[in-house]
Amino acid sequence: MTENNGTRDAGRPLGVAVLGMGTVGTEVVRVLRDHAEDLRSRVGAPLVLRGVAVRDLAKDRGLPAELLTTDAEALVARDDVDLVVEVMGGIDPARALIGAALSGGKSVVTANKALLADYTGELAAAAERSRADLYFEAAVAGAIPVVRPLIQSLSGDRVNRVVGIVNGTTNFILSAMDETGAAYDDVLAEATDLGYAEADPTADVEGFDAAAKAAILASLAFHTRVTAADVYREGISKITAEDLETASAVGCTVKLLAICERVAAGPGEPTSAEGGKDRVSVRVYPALIPRKHPLASVNGAFNAVVVEADNAGRLMFYGQGAGGAPTASAVLGDLVMAARNKFYGGRAPGESVYAELPIAPIGDTPTRYHVNLQVEDRPGVLAAVADTFAQHGVSISTVRQQGHGEGARLVVVTHHAVESSLADTVAALADMDSVTSVTSVLRLEGTEES
Amino acid sequence: MTENNGTRDAGRPLGVAVLGMGTVGTEVVRVLRDHAEDLRSRVGAPLVLRGVAVRDLAKDRGLPAELLTTDAEALVARDDVDLVVEVMGGIDPARALIGAALSGGKSVVTANKALLADYTGELAAAAERSRADLYFEAAVAGAIPVVRPLIQSLSGDRVNRVVGIVNGTTNFILSAMDETGAAYDDVLAEATDLGYAEADPTADVEGFDAAAKAAILASLAFHTRVTAADVYREGISKITAEDLETASAVGCTVKLLAICERVAAGPGEPTSAEGGKDRVSVRVYPALIPRKHPLASVNGAFNAVVVEADNAGRLMFYGQGAGGAPTASAVLGDLVMAARNKFYGGRAPGESVYAELPIAPIGDTPTRYHVNLQVEDRPGVLAAVADTFAQHGVSISTVRQQGHGEGARLVVVTHHAVESSLADTVAALADMDSVTSVTSVLRLEGTEES
Repeated sequence: MTENNGTRDAGRPLGVAVLGMGTVGTEVVRVLRDHAEDLRSRVGAPLVLRGVAVRDLAKDRGLPAELLTTDAEALVARDDVDLVVEVMGGIDPARALIGAALSGGKSVVTANKALLADYTGELAAAAERSRADLYFEAAVAGAIPVVRPLIQSLSGDRVNRVVGIVNGTTNFILSAMDETGAAYDDVLAEATDLGYAEADPTADVEGFDAAAKAAILASLAFHTRVTAADVYREGISKITAEDLETASAVGCTVKLLAICERVAAGPGEPTSAEGGKDRVSVRVYPALIPRKHPLASVNGAFNAVVVEADNAGRLMFYGQGAGGAPTASAVLGDLVMAARNKFYGGRAPGESVYAELPIAPIGDTPTRYHVNLQVEDRPGVLAAVADTFAQHGVSISTVRQQGHGEGARLVVVTHHAVESSLADTVAALADMDSVTSVTSVLRLEGTEES
Repeated sequence: MTENNGTRDAGRPLGVAVLGMGTVGTEVVRVLRDHAEDLRSRVGAPLVLRGVAVRDLAKDRGLPAELLTTDAEALVARDDVDLVVEVMGGIDPARALIGAALSGGKSVVTANKALLADYTGELAAAAERSRADLYFEAAVAGAIPVVRPLIQSLSGDRVNRVVGIVNGTTNFILSAMDETGAAYDDVLAEATDLGYAEADPTADVEGFDAAAKAAILASLAFHTRVTAADVYREGISKITAEDLETASAVGCTVKLLAICERVAAGPGEPTSAEGGKDRVSVRVYPALIPRKHPLASVNGAFNAVVVEADNAGRLMFYGQGAGGAPTASAVLGDLVMAARNKFYGGRAPGESVYAELPIAPIGDTPTRYHVNLQVEDRPGVLAAVADTFAQHGVSISTVRQQGHGEGARLVVVTHHAVESSLADTVAALADMDSVTSVTSVLRLEGTEES
């Protein structure tokens, strides 16, 4: 590690290896080459691109051939590489490459949410042993600074809640469905054509991508290791045009939310006031939110994250959550900071998991629900339905009957209820003679109940 | 400086001095005492409050008497003080106390925007000499992380524009005028009653507070030292109920904006493409913005900052910009980071002013204008007025005639024009026989011209 005596222009060059040259890697390489002078001034020493690991050497990338290699392992191991940028994605071989870099004392900047959601513990430990840095601002919400504010800016506060729209593909789809009334499949096809959705959209539309980001956000917010397996997850593929229409009728829209929440200790457990521990609820699902909620107006491929903390109150961060240039901006910010640490002898904050809060199961997590029922149009149905909710301990906020005859519908909005009670209620409703079908069950978030 | 071997719980206590015990200082002290365990876990070593400098020892503050002192200088000089939190405000004695702390190798966290706007250079140099840290997230927009994102997250990007609502008092007043149609004086009186405005509101309503913050933001965004004197400044005290009404009629509202902008080289100067330098325009004034602009819905005492960068695109940060608890959140986040640096041996990024971009005078800075004229209601007036604009090189976007007879008014919206041309135009308009008076001249921001 270079210790510097304060004269910045004496810095020896710091070598950078870039792993992967997709949209993000291409932008990172471009900035490293086109803005070398600015980066040098900001780091204190020149950043020199030593090489880029790619899968296919034949493709023309406008780079000198000697900078390209298919041997990522050898590139990471080079003595003249001080900093490794991993933008290849996927678990393998990224996991081993980052591990090798960190073990060799090289600092790593990564945008790899899937890897971090499962292996931050392992990677952070490797970084700790060799006193290298692991930075990952780009892993959540692209260019929007969220990771650094949670780790650093809010390190003197107590975070209670993080709610975000952190997946651009699903937000594009839901925004379009809301605006046009189109069906899910049609909008997904359009998103694929426009390049907003991948050929296999599963990771996005089923919420896996958002769940990985939720795990990362929750880990940071609550100083507790949270992995993707701890995140309750539902995707948007079952959302219908009718769901959006019903949402609209009650002044809401539907968003795929990543929610990280500090909740009370479980039943029978000591509360935090009694020396026990709060729990952490982390979940990803589509939910109704009121149109007046700050997240409701986040449309298209944009992302936004709302953070609520004891002293800071409610903060919101908004911007482009994906794409080559925005993600590269986050990567390069991290790279400059990691390089400065190499140069001045500092360290990024390591993993902070001291709080070790337990994960609250989804069945214990109270949310409000919006239940749509197709019912027979005869007297007493509303009362019978209300009674079924009451029998399962689910308190109703509003019931609204829509239509008549065969098309009669009841829209029920509940107060906060735990998922297990709601599930029991829905099962009982489905068994009722007067209920033709339970058309949809959606959570309702972002309302203040009195 | 303590070098740590990786076992965090071995850390010796770090001593903290707090200068000032107003609303922010009180919150900082409360958290230091009530959340000591969390802070210890996050820093790696205990933070111990050594003392609080106050003006009046007699006041009951719920603190042991031995923690209170009126001798701030002696408190800062204590051997067992490693970190100094300055939340007393004002230039003197804060400047000397912070200088002494930094020169003694103590890291400083300050919320003092007025001091930083004029003396960051001096203070940063003192920090550099002794390898101490100077942190100041709380100086701009309270709890909203803006300073750290500009210094760190965007350090690999090129920032082109920062536009913010950074003063809660004026935003409260303008929001209330917009909502209720009330006059400036009445709303100011209400704001004073509610504690949103100080007894002497000059620093807020005349834009001095916003100008100090603009200077800080511009310095960070453009890697150039910008002081309060470089900021063109107009306050809101001349804004009338009629201005808000006119704004509303064209789908706008009025906000006090702090604008930091990268603009082209001056006339005759080499452009940045020719090896010359861009310039920096920093200005604070009330301006019309379209109601659809993200800043238009930032109401009451809230703050928001929009940052536009080459790769990141447009980011927005939103939250509580003032108040004891939110400001304390920012102070404590900085304190934890400064303490970690003491413990692990790192450094905060120092002042970055390598770009040394020149300041563009306000007369050179093109903006759009919204000009209200009282005119005689006779044929040819509109043409004559339009001709006056044209003669001074100011291109008109729209002209709208409102009312008839004595109350006839023209509302002119221009394309981008430099202030000097507009000033000449206004002088010429005032001389016209057919123009009774130039009722108001307001800038228009946040529109995209085709």
